[in-house]
Amino acid sequence: FLNIKATRQALIDERKKSDDKCREILLNTFMEYFFIKQRRPLRESLNILEKAVLIRVLSSVNGKQKDAAKYLDLKYSTMSEKVKKYNIKYFKIPIAD
Amino acid sequence: FLNIKATRQALIDERKKSDDKCREILLNTFMEYFFIKQRRPLRESLNILEKAVLIRVLSSVNGKQKDAAKYLDLKYSTMSEKVKKYNIKYFKIPIAD
Repeated sequence: FLNIKATRQALIDERKKSDDKCREILLNTFMEYFFIKQRRPLRESLNILEKAVLIRVLSSVNGKQKDAAKYLDLKYSTMSEKVKKYNIKYFKIPIAD
Repeated sequence: FLNIKATRQALIDERKKSDDKCREILLNTFMEYFFIKQRRPLRESLNILEKAVLIRVLSSVNGKQKDAAKYLDLKYSTMSEKVKKYNIKYFKIPIAD
């Protein structure tokens, strides 16, 4: 019975290891392409990425800055500064039941 | 002859378009995996990424902070602050001709 437990743990570890490996490959590929190949100032690359993340998160919470701030562990005031900084606008679509 | 030129331009445009598409897919995949799936504060994710980029660039210029700063369009002082902040150390290997 202990063996089953050990095997299960080993499988979980293996899975975790391969997840870590995937994460590492993805990080490296992205870094090469986005930060190294396209020679841009570091600050500019980080800003492009931050803006994309903000838009992605905001669209998943129906544009509610408070919820997006919570998700990203930002103060509401920081969130709204960033929305202004990146000039993120909303396209409002009216819907009815 | 003009046609050849036009075709060539069209091929270049097509190539550029598919490059842009690849870039977009890579950015989105990375964002989902790195920023959305692994729920972390935004600042923390950006820092992990910045540290990885610094190590990658520093290792390509043989650890020379001045060259790395130039590559990333950072002031030397900013570069050296970041190296301190992320506690990046060097592993020096002596070599001889």
